[in-house]
Amino acid sequence: MTSLKKVLTLKEVSPMAHRLTGLKTDLLIARAEELRKEIKQGVKKPFKEVIEVHSGDGQAMGTKPVTFIRQVMAACFYPELLQSDRLPRDVKFRAQELLQQCGGSVGVYSDTFGLEYVQHNVARFIEERDGGVPCDPQNIYLTAGSQKAGQLLLNLLVHTSGCGSGPCGTGVLVPVPCSPWFSLALQEAGGVRLPYFLADQGVCWELDVQELQRVVQSARGHCTPSVLYINNPGNPTGHVQSRQSIEEVIRFAASEGLYLLVDEVYQDSVFGQGRAFLSYKKVLYEMGPEFSSRVELAAIHSASKGVAGECGSRCGFIEFVNLDPQVKSLSASYFSANSLPPTSGQLVLVTALHSPRAGEPSYYTWTQESQSHLSSLSRNAALVVESLDRIPGIRVLSPQGGFFCFPRIHIPPLVVQEAETQGLSPDLFYCLRFLEEWGVAVGPGSDFGAREGSHHIRLNLLLPHDKLKSVLESLEKFHLQFTEEFS
Amino acid sequence: MTSLKKVLTLKEVSPMAHRLTGLKTDLLIARAEELRKEIKQGVKKPFKEVIEVHSGDGQAMGTKPVTFIRQVMAACFYPELLQSDRLPRDVKFRAQELLQQCGGSVGVYSDTFGLEYVQHNVARFIEERDGGVPCDPQNIYLTAGSQKAGQLLLNLLVHTSGCGSGPCGTGVLVPVPCSPWFSLALQEAGGVRLPYFLADQGVCWELDVQELQRVVQSARGHCTPSVLYINNPGNPTGHVQSRQSIEEVIRFAASEGLYLLVDEVYQDSVFGQGRAFLSYKKVLYEMGPEFSSRVELAAIHSASKGVAGECGSRCGFIEFVNLDPQVKSLSASYFSANSLPPTSGQLVLVTALHSPRAGEPSYYTWTQESQSHLSSLSRNAALVVESLDRIPGIRVLSPQGGFFCFPRIHIPPLVVQEAETQGLSPDLFYCLRFLEEWGVAVGPGSDFGAREGSHHIRLNLLLPHDKLKSVLESLEKFHLQFTEEFS
Ligand SMILES: Cc1ncc(COP(=O)(O)O)c(C=O)c1O
Ligand SMILES: Cc1ncc(COP(=O)(O)O)c(C=O)c1O
Repeated sequence: MTSLKKVLTLKEVSPMAHRLTGLKTDLLIARAEELRKEIKQGVKKPFKEVIEVHSGDGQAMGTKPVTFIRQVMAACFYPELLQSDRLPRDVKFRAQELLQQCGGSVGVYSDTFGLEYVQHNVARFIEERDGGVPCDPQNIYLTAGSQKAGQLLLNLLVHTSGCGSGPCGTGVLVPVPCSPWFSLALQEAGGVRLPYFLADQGVCWELDVQELQRVVQSARGHCTPSVLYINNPGNPTGHVQSRQSIEEVIRFAASEGLYLLVDEVYQDSVFGQGRAFLSYKKVLYEMGPEFSSRVELAAIHSASKGVAGECGSRCGFIEFVNLDPQVKSLSASYFSANSLPPTSGQLVLVTALHSPRAGEPSYYTWTQESQSHLSSLSRNAALVVESLDRIPGIRVLSPQGGFFCFPRIHIPPLVVQEAETQGLSPDLFYCLRFLEEWGVAVGPGSDFGAREGSHHIRLNLLLPHDKLKSVLESLEKFHLQFTEEFS
Repeated sequence: MTSLKKVLTLKEVSPMAHRLTGLKTDLLIARAEELRKEIKQGVKKPFKEVIEVHSGDGQAMGTKPVTFIRQVMAACFYPELLQSDRLPRDVKFRAQELLQQCGGSVGVYSDTFGLEYVQHNVARFIEERDGGVPCDPQNIYLTAGSQKAGQLLLNLLVHTSGCGSGPCGTGVLVPVPCSPWFSLALQEAGGVRLPYFLADQGVCWELDVQELQRVVQSARGHCTPSVLYINNPGNPTGHVQSRQSIEEVIRFAASEGLYLLVDEVYQDSVFGQGRAFLSYKKVLYEMGPEFSSRVELAAIHSASKGVAGECGSRCGFIEFVNLDPQVKSLSASYFSANSLPPTSGQLVLVTALHSPRAGEPSYYTWTQESQSHLSSLSRNAALVVESLDRIPGIRVLSPQGGFFCFPRIHIPPLVVQEAETQGLSPDLFYCLRFLEEWGVAVGPGSDFGAREGSHHIRLNLLLPHDKLKSVLESLEKFHLQFTEEFS
């Protein structure tokens, strides 16, 4: 054997892997897992169980899956159940329809852009949602989750990763704060990150077009600002855009020649008083052909969120608006090789998008489950705001939609120093202490980004109400102690 | 509105999308789909239905899913079924175990590398398969299918895509013929493709180490040969490597310092007389520490093939052997952001890997279904060989495993000219004519690669026996007519 050298070493691994920074949340999750194992082994702790409040995984938080979706899927996996009288009529009917549309089995590969039936029924959902604005099924691309959808889009749109931050680099406007997966995907694609700040005061993390303007202007020369990423309703902010705000953004994108990449996965979860979800597509169409015939838009959605909350199925979709036909045909191979939506996931998604109709046997249960989704988000949001408002040094903007809120935490200067000596960010230091002492894992805000010197944590609104209550009580006690210790 | 220019145009789209060439099979599939629609609309055709024989999708070919897997999945999706007496005891037991391991619901996100339980049980499967060779669950990475696994690996291993085919380009040895997805993934990653030819005569597409040697030697200077991709059992060849052949390849990889990327998705489907599947991992370990402590290997497998044939679940895994610990820790973010294995798919996979035991209620059915998988592949292989051997101008090497065979077709020189004027490859011209006249879609060989001037088609061995028989009869008639027409 002549060669002693390894092939895959730190030096030889793709530079793309080097670009990806680890998340602080991963350290927190790892520690939560260790604590859980210690408790199992009988190690004494000041708490009985570890509670995770950082993630957006509804079912992991204890939310019950939607009965109709699960019944339909059970029958699709095991069609013998169509003979059973355990399943309601409309479930059987739906399952039969789905099976017919995938050649009789959920075990087949899907077409490149998804099953034709699923494309059609996603389009039908969008038309109904948008009050009749037309949607062509050919513009619907199914993907293995909406995160994958975002990655695929970035990899198409970032065309000059080679030149780093030179004037030819593809600039992507990214909100602060923002889901970490999007920032990672952008690092991986090699685009230039152009952070725009959401308003950390006033109503709730509003988007200010002047801020977009500032970012684009100062970016020109360093890179080519090309893509504007919007997340509405917002994670982790809980913000829901008004029609006026959306119109402003569209006008801005049009005048600056920006591609709109709109992440609308929380569209079913708007609970703020007087707020309603409006899709960018709908608003764009209602602004007339001057805009609707030209502004390029890709909107993404997912089976993971909303009432369904089926994170494990990994299915989402893109709707393209004004996609260049040549790009469409060129990129077919790219999507074919990469979108790879699971067939089972597509069936979950399309079932989630079409609820049973009034009069059908599953209508009542579905309606209840869906109302309970919204009402528990809304009750939890009220509880969080009320509880945190009581705590000196914590300030939260009242969420209007989505699964999260993003309170600002005052962290004493001594902590900032101490964290630094330990090589931790102040927010991670805070979260790890809270976890260690109270067994509660909240998300360290710096994974999401923040203004210099401001610190945050992310909390989801998905826990059962009583559990959330006790988490908030723990947070209050912890925060007071912690502040005292370091003052 | 100042800007009239589109953002996402052919000029602006990522160069990666430009690199990906379309597949000829896609044209064939599109035409098959059109024909199907024409028939539905009542257009008269010389055939009653369109039969596709090109794909590797067992259930789309009519294979019945494995009862045990489907029953377990139905119960995981709808746990109320655990109360029903429609499901056997061992099914319920298994489903309960799975549910426990994913926090009670298949609707949750999975951990970065997959559910811990799934990692453990994949490792247990590998140890049993390899006669006790140890497997550390920490080396098992679950992915959204084995195609995704291969893409992820290539994107890690190809570290110098920037320099094209310069001396610093990462060279990847790829068999000819080879699954098109792998060649596409390599184009996308930007590696330098180094084709090595499998032996198109003798027993069945054997791998010759001298050929590997020739390729590596002539590549040095143009690029850095770094990765050797092996597909055993082979698609589309049907070849199954012997222990001796695997040992030779491992010795070669060791002496040349190549990373072994081994695709073993057809491991459960070996039917050739005197042939058995041996994993590279097992052979490597049995060659002793001189090799087993140093040769770097990543082996991939999938729920899509074998008895399970669950293509729609999109789940596969990588086993790493001798992965550099620094690379392992660096690449955690990369895998976390990209592998995204569906939770439901992981449950399908792990169920497929662990059959019911003797004495359990589902044992008999499983055993029957599993035997019928192998015996029908074997019967179909014999039928194909016998039928094609009769046809002058067609020659097939007898497949020993996997789902395919890859007959060589003599295409008259006149056809080659005619195809050229139409802008088609000769094999696609042949396949389209066969489809048009007989309603049968076989795979155009040039998607898989071939020696200059030799033409092939790919046939799967998955059709019901009688249907395959009539397909082969059609092929005989077509081939004779076609040859006469163009002679
Ligand atoms: C804003 C946003 N977009 C996309 C996703 C990804 O969802 P998935 O990939 O499960 O569809 C998430 C996940 O939490 C999210 O918060
Ligand atoms: C050799 C080989 N590897 C991998 C795959 C991909 O399988 P999947 O992505 O469904 O796991 C295929 C599919 O046909 C194949 O033939």
